[in-house]
Amino acid sequence: MIVVLKHGVEREKREQLIEWLRGQGLGIHISEGEFQTVLGLIGDTSRVDMDLIASLGIVDSVKRVTEPFKCCNRKFHPEDMVVEVGDVKIGGGNFCMIAGPCSVESEDQIVTVAKAVKASGANVLRGGAFKPRTSPYDFQGLKGTGIELLKIARKETGLPIVTEIMGVNHLPLFEDVDIIQVGARNMQNFDLLRELGKLRKPILLKRGLANTLKELLMSAEYIMAGGNEQVILCERGIRTFDDYTRNTLDLAAVPMLRELTHLPIIVDPSHATGIARLVPPMALAATACGADGLIIEVHNDPMHALCDGAQSLRPEEYDALAKKVYSVREVLNK
Amino acid sequence: MIVVLKHGVEREKREQLIEWLRGQGLGIHISEGEFQTVLGLIGDTSRVDMDLIASLGIVDSVKRVTEPFKCCNRKFHPEDMVVEVGDVKIGGGNFCMIAGPCSVESEDQIVTVAKAVKASGANVLRGGAFKPRTSPYDFQGLKGTGIELLKIARKETGLPIVTEIMGVNHLPLFEDVDIIQVGARNMQNFDLLRELGKLRKPILLKRGLANTLKELLMSAEYIMAGGNEQVILCERGIRTFDDYTRNTLDLAAVPMLRELTHLPIIVDPSHATGIARLVPPMALAATACGADGLIIEVHNDPMHALCDGAQSLRPEEYDALAKKVYSVREVLNK
Amino acid sequence: MIVVLKHGVEREKREQLIEWLRGQGLGIHISEGEFQTVLGLIGDTSRVDMDLIASLGIVDSVKRVTEPFKCCNRKFHPEDMVVEVGDVKIGGGNFCMIAGPCSVESEDQIVTVAKAVKASGANVLRGGAFKPRTSPYDFQGLKGTGIELLKIARKETGLPIVTEIMGVNHLPLFEDVDIIQVGARNMQNFDLLRELGKLRKPILLKRGLANTLKELLMSAEYIMAGGNEQVILCERGIRTFDDYTRNTLDLAAVPMLRELTHLPIIVDPSHATGIARLVPPMALAATACGADGLIIEVHNDPMHALCDGAQSLRPEEYDALAKKVYSVREVLNK
Amino acid sequence: MIVVLKHGVEREKREQLIEWLRGQGLGIHISEGEFQTVLGLIGDTSRVDMDLIASLGIVDSVKRVTEPFKCCNRKFHPEDMVVEVGDVKIGGGNFCMIAGPCSVESEDQIVTVAKAVKASGANVLRGGAFKPRTSPYDFQGLKGTGIELLKIARKETGLPIVTEIMGVNHLPLFEDVDIIQVGARNMQNFDLLRELGKLRKPILLKRGLANTLKELLMSAEYIMAGGNEQVILCERGIRTFDDYTRNTLDLAAVPMLRELTHLPIIVDPSHATGIARLVPPMALAATACGADGLIIEVHNDPMHALCDGAQSLRPEEYDALAKKVYSVREVLNK
Repeated sequence: MIVVLKHGVEREKREQLIEWLRGQGLGIHISEGEFQTVLGLIGDTSRVDMDLIASLGIVDSVKRVTEPFKCCNRKFHPEDMVVEVGDVKIGGGNFCMIAGPCSVESEDQIVTVAKAVKASGANVLRGGAFKPRTSPYDFQGLKGTGIELLKIARKETGLPIVTEIMGVNHLPLFEDVDIIQVGARNMQNFDLLRELGKLRKPILLKRGLANTLKELLMSAEYIMAGGNEQVILCERGIRTFDDYTRNTLDLAAVPMLRELTHLPIIVDPSHATGIARLVPPMALAATACGADGLIIEVHNDPMHALCDGAQSLRPEEYDALAKKVYSVREVLNK
Repeated sequence: MIVVLKHGVEREKREQLIEWLRGQGLGIHISEGEFQTVLGLIGDTSRVDMDLIASLGIVDSVKRVTEPFKCCNRKFHPEDMVVEVGDVKIGGGNFCMIAGPCSVESEDQIVTVAKAVKASGANVLRGGAFKPRTSPYDFQGLKGTGIELLKIARKETGLPIVTEIMGVNHLPLFEDVDIIQVGARNMQNFDLLRELGKLRKPILLKRGLANTLKELLMSAEYIMAGGNEQVILCERGIRTFDDYTRNTLDLAAVPMLRELTHLPIIVDPSHATGIARLVPPMALAATACGADGLIIEVHNDPMHALCDGAQSLRPEEYDALAKKVYSVREVLNK
Repeated sequence: MIVVLKHGVEREKREQLIEWLRGQGLGIHISEGEFQTVLGLIGDTSRVDMDLIASLGIVDSVKRVTEPFKCCNRKFHPEDMVVEVGDVKIGGGNFCMIAGPCSVESEDQIVTVAKAVKASGANVLRGGAFKPRTSPYDFQGLKGTGIELLKIARKETGLPIVTEIMGVNHLPLFEDVDIIQVGARNMQNFDLLRELGKLRKPILLKRGLANTLKELLMSAEYIMAGGNEQVILCERGIRTFDDYTRNTLDLAAVPMLRELTHLPIIVDPSHATGIARLVPPMALAATACGADGLIIEVHNDPMHALCDGAQSLRPEEYDALAKKVYSVREVLNK
Repeated sequence: MIVVLKHGVEREKREQLIEWLRGQGLGIHISEGEFQTVLGLIGDTSRVDMDLIASLGIVDSVKRVTEPFKCCNRKFHPEDMVVEVGDVKIGGGNFCMIAGPCSVESEDQIVTVAKAVKASGANVLRGGAFKPRTSPYDFQGLKGTGIELLKIARKETGLPIVTEIMGVNHLPLFEDVDIIQVGARNMQNFDLLRELGKLRKPILLKRGLANTLKELLMSAEYIMAGGNEQVILCERGIRTFDDYTRNTLDLAAVPMLRELTHLPIIVDPSHATGIARLVPPMALAATACGADGLIIEVHNDPMHALCDGAQSLRPEEYDALAKKVYSVREVLNK
């Protein structure tokens, strides 16, 4: 950690700070320049409160030299992490196509959609059982029943299943779920993350609406620090001033995360845009910039078919998209 | 709910939509203008998926006429809600001064600070026992012990206590806490909100970093829909492109929330700015625009005193600020 | 335009509003629903101040049914606009590759880079002569001399040239420039836009850092309303809370603008990210989601070559990228 | 300037960078720590391209030790700047109340409003003659005629006048204007700023919608570097995800700018919120956090009076607000 002191600070205050830092068990390397003094802190700085030091009147700025994340840091894990779910591999050059309806509604619905997306090349089935809704009066999902229906669809198709958890209390219901999803609103529900770190099961961690990449990695770190290393990161749009789409899909996060971490990175163009007709172009863009997979909403509801609407694709639209996705991957992997 | 159809939509698609809406048990009032058709939906629209309709190809826009929040809606509760904690009243013209350290560190620390802020006029004591930290390696708080120390400070000073909860599992530890705080990162932890709705105890609900006022009210609604009406809202800064302060304090939220809801609204200038010397001006600004109270970090640690730093005020700084706050209130209430 | 009145407004205030609207020469179609009254305004609403009406105490919301942009509205121009510069066509299925250095520095530099990018398939040469710099003390470009050097490079390579204008006063210097660029900071310099509308020369209009798509289109409208229809839009990143890249590239703007307008839409991954190694993945993503072209910084400066740095690609990196871009286009156009 | 190199960079690359820096005429102070190497650049670093260095592969981060702004830097000008316009003083403990209509509409209108606001204590008259409008079809102001009407109102009341300039070409019309305003959209119209730097007349510089405080100060620097030191800064709301007000008023900018610069800082609550009934609370908040003045829209139009609307206050509302503003100032200055 490097601490840059302001120009012309009183010697006494400077000494007090240095003494205080030494009291924290740190070695201090002092470098006095013409315009500033730079303190290099040597030792275990992971417990040093960077914000506190930065806020001191005599400090100009503080800079971590080593990132605060370790388990998910590519520096220490140069090889891509490959998450395995049955026969499906995610990361390390393997492309994963997760698809399914927003909410599980009925056995017929989930099985029909599962078969359709499998036929188009999807290798994981998604479906919401617990739904995080802004309003307490909105439909909250089929909960336990929804998970049971997902298992039926898994049995019928062989597709592993992924579904979202909303609280530590529901963990027992997720025992036989293949991948547990943490939604954007729970990305910093640290208690939940810590519990998921005790499992030995893949976690699909979605980026929060207003979270930086570093915060996303620190949340992955919460899970991995507990011993569960199978974390899949998901970019799903951030909140900006822009309101023509539900969120702003931040695709540069894909190559940037690729540098920072060895974890697989997938993209959710459905939630990012909230508009079905924008899903195919953004899915192709995500593929072209190197994502390890896509999670896409597909629905066979006649209402959707009827009105060309919502953020869900119809099975035939998904099929057409999947073909294009594979051809873009192929041409870029040549 | 009002649905505006696009200009020149096919009659057939329009009829299918209307039929589908009627199938949801709604009456439809159709108004055909020169440039558009407007559908007025009559009946219980609280379960209608507004996003779904808005995303349909033939729909231009959808507008809720009645807000989706009820329990916390001033329209239905014109009188200010007054939350009572022992002798302390919050809201309805009563000003509340919550103060204390960021984290509870020791009995000596919390008791000393509690006595100091009480002497300056504070009427509620704050102190973190469970700390939501971005990093799993940072200090996570004294947890249960921290709550016990808060109770000791309460006994010594008579000040009611407020402290943050991070998960449903910890609820038993909060039984004897006077006000339970929900932090910004948990504002949309709906499972937690629902559990807090079952209590009969004041909840201090902080606005999330990237949440709209409507989302804040919907989270209050989660608590109130469960029967717990004692919710205090707290503006604590939002995340913007601006980085000279930790967050951007959005003070216009205070008068705007005042219109929308009858709940008390307080302001946290400490977390909003992250810089101690900005706390007094922003506390005064919050007072001047009509906040019902302030929650401010106060610390007696010599490190802070030494270096003029961090976001915590020293007791003597808090004392000076409190005097000014009261004088601004007095002159504006004349 | 549709005006939704609040529930239960006083009849007198409502009548006054209607009378005032009629006084503006508008017909009013009144539709009274159970919960609200909707006024449909008939006639030329383009001069009605929507913000003013929306701010009235009795008004719930105002909605334009017809977009306020006309010249650049796809509704009225279903065919793609094709901008022609010499032999180069931009838009309408033609892909344009604009490349060159950030600043023109010397004849040798600009000619060398021009030849290199041409060899890689670029069909327009870019280079800054007037540089908008945050600091008055930073290098402000070679100005007139820079434009002369661009012309030399054009003569040597046959590539048409594009360069940025910063003020109306410099227009005479741009007479022989093929495409005039309006930078992000001048997107709402309405005086400049109006003057450019008097030319008959292609304008490359970059989206402002915090501007919506509608605002971008309204700025294009300023140019087109003057009679200059040759406008090329450019997405170049927006300002968000995120700071790992200089800006956040908003690629969903590409397919969304495609719906709204018939103008060509290109993407600038260099300014959007500010990091050379992120330019190739984002250029490929932009291609995959349907952009009509790319504008990319290429530089042959040894400093860059030396240190793998900055947002500029070296010629050999650009060459490798161009090949991939073309192969993605080919596979998606099949 | 301090350059922190990444851990473990190749010696050769490091030497090349150091050589290149020395070639720019800089002295280099090298400090090697256990974890990093820090280069302290000595000499005139104002022309060093910080972004370029930061983007190099071997560089971890770059930090300016001296801010890039000088003329407006409080470090070099510890005394508050006082801008004088006739008898009116702005800054240095003097409070300025600028008021008037959004647009000048007629002699009767501007004179009536001018008299009213003067009676309430306003000491500068505002009124738009050139209006920056998002749409080319919206009312663009009375232009030269508007300025003439402002002068009439000045003659009638003695109030100095402030009005917005939109382009260099209009400068001759502003010769007899007391304070020239640069609007938010032109904050980085560097050509305009440079021209205004040649005048010897106060400039009211509004913060751009998505500009940082540092960028605002750099724009002031453009004017001051030209020799015109009379710059007044104005916070008027920034663009965020939040949409309940037109912009988000960033009041913490007031005390923060106070530290960074000696220039006067005023606040525009009218444009920041866009809602008349939020103007009084935010004006009081701005006063309480130490602003040097307020610029507020006041209008006597019957339409506004009629409907309680828009962002303009009626004269009687302004009068009531002004009284409260003065009483808050009084109590805080005690």
